[in-house]
Amino acid sequence: MRPENASAFSAGYLYFRFIPRRLYGKISYYSPGGGLFLNVAIMGYGTVGSGVAELLAKHHEHIVKKSTQSELELKYILDIRDFDGLPGNAVFIKDFDIILNDPAVQIVVETMGGLHPAYEYVLACLKAGKSVVTSNKELVAEKGYELLTAAEEMNVNFLFEASVGGGIPIIRPISQCLAANEIVEIAGILNGTTNFILTRMIHDSMSFEAALKIAQDNGYAEKDPTADIEGHDACRKICILASLCFGKHVYPKSVYTEGITKITLDDVECAHAWGGVIKLIGRAKKLPDGRISAMVSPSLIHSSSQLASVDDVFNAILVRGDATGDVVFYGRGAGKMPTASAVVADVIDCAKHHERKKLFGWADSDDSYVVDRLDTVTSLYVRCALKSPDALARADAAFGEIVRIPYFDPEGSIAAFTTAAATERELFAALDSLDCIEPLSVIRVTDY
Amino acid sequence: MRPENASAFSAGYLYFRFIPRRLYGKISYYSPGGGLFLNVAIMGYGTVGSGVAELLAKHHEHIVKKSTQSELELKYILDIRDFDGLPGNAVFIKDFDIILNDPAVQIVVETMGGLHPAYEYVLACLKAGKSVVTSNKELVAEKGYELLTAAEEMNVNFLFEASVGGGIPIIRPISQCLAANEIVEIAGILNGTTNFILTRMIHDSMSFEAALKIAQDNGYAEKDPTADIEGHDACRKICILASLCFGKHVYPKSVYTEGITKITLDDVECAHAWGGVIKLIGRAKKLPDGRISAMVSPSLIHSSSQLASVDDVFNAILVRGDATGDVVFYGRGAGKMPTASAVVADVIDCAKHHERKKLFGWADSDDSYVVDRLDTVTSLYVRCALKSPDALARADAAFGEIVRIPYFDPEGSIAAFTTAAATERELFAALDSLDCIEPLSVIRVTDY
Repeated sequence: MRPENASAFSAGYLYFRFIPRRLYGKISYYSPGGGLFLNVAIMGYGTVGSGVAELLAKHHEHIVKKSTQSELELKYILDIRDFDGLPGNAVFIKDFDIILNDPAVQIVVETMGGLHPAYEYVLACLKAGKSVVTSNKELVAEKGYELLTAAEEMNVNFLFEASVGGGIPIIRPISQCLAANEIVEIAGILNGTTNFILTRMIHDSMSFEAALKIAQDNGYAEKDPTADIEGHDACRKICILASLCFGKHVYPKSVYTEGITKITLDDVECAHAWGGVIKLIGRAKKLPDGRISAMVSPSLIHSSSQLASVDDVFNAILVRGDATGDVVFYGRGAGKMPTASAVVADVIDCAKHHERKKLFGWADSDDSYVVDRLDTVTSLYVRCALKSPDALARADAAFGEIVRIPYFDPEGSIAAFTTAAATERELFAALDSLDCIEPLSVIRVTDY
Repeated sequence: MRPENASAFSAGYLYFRFIPRRLYGKISYYSPGGGLFLNVAIMGYGTVGSGVAELLAKHHEHIVKKSTQSELELKYILDIRDFDGLPGNAVFIKDFDIILNDPAVQIVVETMGGLHPAYEYVLACLKAGKSVVTSNKELVAEKGYELLTAAEEMNVNFLFEASVGGGIPIIRPISQCLAANEIVEIAGILNGTTNFILTRMIHDSMSFEAALKIAQDNGYAEKDPTADIEGHDACRKICILASLCFGKHVYPKSVYTEGITKITLDDVECAHAWGGVIKLIGRAKKLPDGRISAMVSPSLIHSSSQLASVDDVFNAILVRGDATGDVVFYGRGAGKMPTASAVVADVIDCAKHHERKKLFGWADSDDSYVVDRLDTVTSLYVRCALKSPDALARADAAFGEIVRIPYFDPEGSIAAFTTAAATERELFAALDSLDCIEPLSVIRVTDY
């Protein structure tokens, strides 16, 4: 890494070390040019963490320039595993306390994943006056309010652009560019694994199981794919987005979450006949009383929607503002370099705003903030076995009105239809009351 | 506007007026709480300017909070026309010098459009130490380097998020979120009017003339639609984007620009048969020697592209980064409130970074920076009359290889094909050399 500059660089480093200055309680090393000499530590040298180290090395000069400081140096990489080959001047360490107790480390990158010990480490770093950048969606979704509050108290940054949408810029555009809007709704395809599986089902008529197998073979799904296919990953992301858009923390436990494991090729075909596709959608909406509705579920999306053509591992996030209308952000929602580039952009921002933190955050919320999903309004797609000749007429009466979807069934014993919009309480009550049909699939219909 | 606060507000205003402090050469009024009392002026009360005034009033409290200052007050609106009804406490004025000479006005919004006198006014404001926010793409495309330099010299902001993509956040994501990337290419549907016309031609088989008429009737096209349909508007926008992405000013005169006036329904049908659509695409690409290629022209886009499904007045911008891969930003590229919301977001940013300017800018360039369009590599779609039985065989030989597009022509006298990729110099030379075909349409084929 930058061998041509190594000696000049080390000399500069020694020089700066002897003129430390205390700045907002943190030790900083001023260069004669005025910028700061900042040290970075990475916690977790997995896919994303190693990508961050790679980018910091590859675009070093460009990154330092963008940071407006005089140097950004990767000092430590914390990981319990052993690795060969050191990136640049960085040192591999296994003891977190080295980072915590080194006042020269002012920006910490957390790419460990999981809640523990990531949470304890990040909190300790913030309380020690270090800025933290994370790609850990579980951490932000569960502990965002607490960590943002700790960051605010210590006048440091806690940034997490990479936690949602991988390389798609979304956190910052929401908080900055859309600042003059009231955001009324947000929805998106937030999980690449499930979108890859659904794309194979839609375009290649592959079964869910076969598509999952291919996703695993290609490294798009983990051995234990639960977090993806059951919607937990998408849930964490919509929680982060909703917290940011609407100003109060949305906790994953309060968001009804349904995965894609029950989707069949029959449903995929019906969706096509209806004029659209099935996607796993995370969404959140502001209600007139200040509360929000939020949900993750498979959804029928019309072909004319910008979300309908988002295929494979790509993600897309639709933000509906009162002034802007719909704005959609599209790109790779995961992957080593896209995610690492989002982390590094945050590191640059931390460095740039070293002396003055970025304003960024949300309030805490109580259990009543997210409404019961039964109170949300939607329309449903229902595929069902017909148990009596007048089953559809009775369904039409029970739901107010239904629209049949052409469904190829030579024996006429199965039908598919969509209902009018109503609360889920009303719709599922109507469904329960109908003994003349046996639901095979029930999927929400959205209008994004 | 905020009548309930008017008296408290006026009292506060008077109070602040008596404790001016000199700050970086500018007079600022501190509130006891620590934030600044900032005044805003709007130059040009047309569609966008009046939208800005509306948003500043409607979301006043939210905007002030986001700005982290104690007050953001609209003080003057400059327009040569007379208007009824004053927005809030603002005063309509016709004399630019009032804004220029009032030290309390620290943020000026330029929504006049056109190059003169917008350029002279903006330059004077910057030189007087005022930050400027503009939605004027012509101004930024022609004078961006000069105005950014003036802003830098005076340590003030010059922001122009609204100049490209209306309400789509694009300038800021490029400069910040994608900071850790090297951007290698950028392309987009940058003009809503032409996209509306092409959408009508594609989906409703309407002629160009009929579609233009509808666009004019709907207010999507001006009486004199030249700037839109000839591609000049898209050209200004790709110049701004390319300047930002690649770091040197790209002047409109150096960018080959072709509009959509020659597109026929036959071409639309051929594009469909080929597997895609025709869109007006502005694009710029970094070349290995540090120069760039840049162009605006109708282009064949494959249906699988995220740009293919961008219809009506919507815009979309694709940014290709070395780490992120393709990221696409989609939304309303024009319109009063989307554009105004982008302006207000910039005003908020100006207020927030009042004491420390945002780093933002690019270098100047010389005539050699944008390569001759004849040196750019592309493949072509050609629809032509065949003047000899062996015309297509000879075309195949001349172009290296051609791929025929099914074209319904009962007499077999017209054919359509795409060529292999080569420089435009080679392709157009081959076309000129072929006396056996008479080109009816020649359109570039892109791979976005």
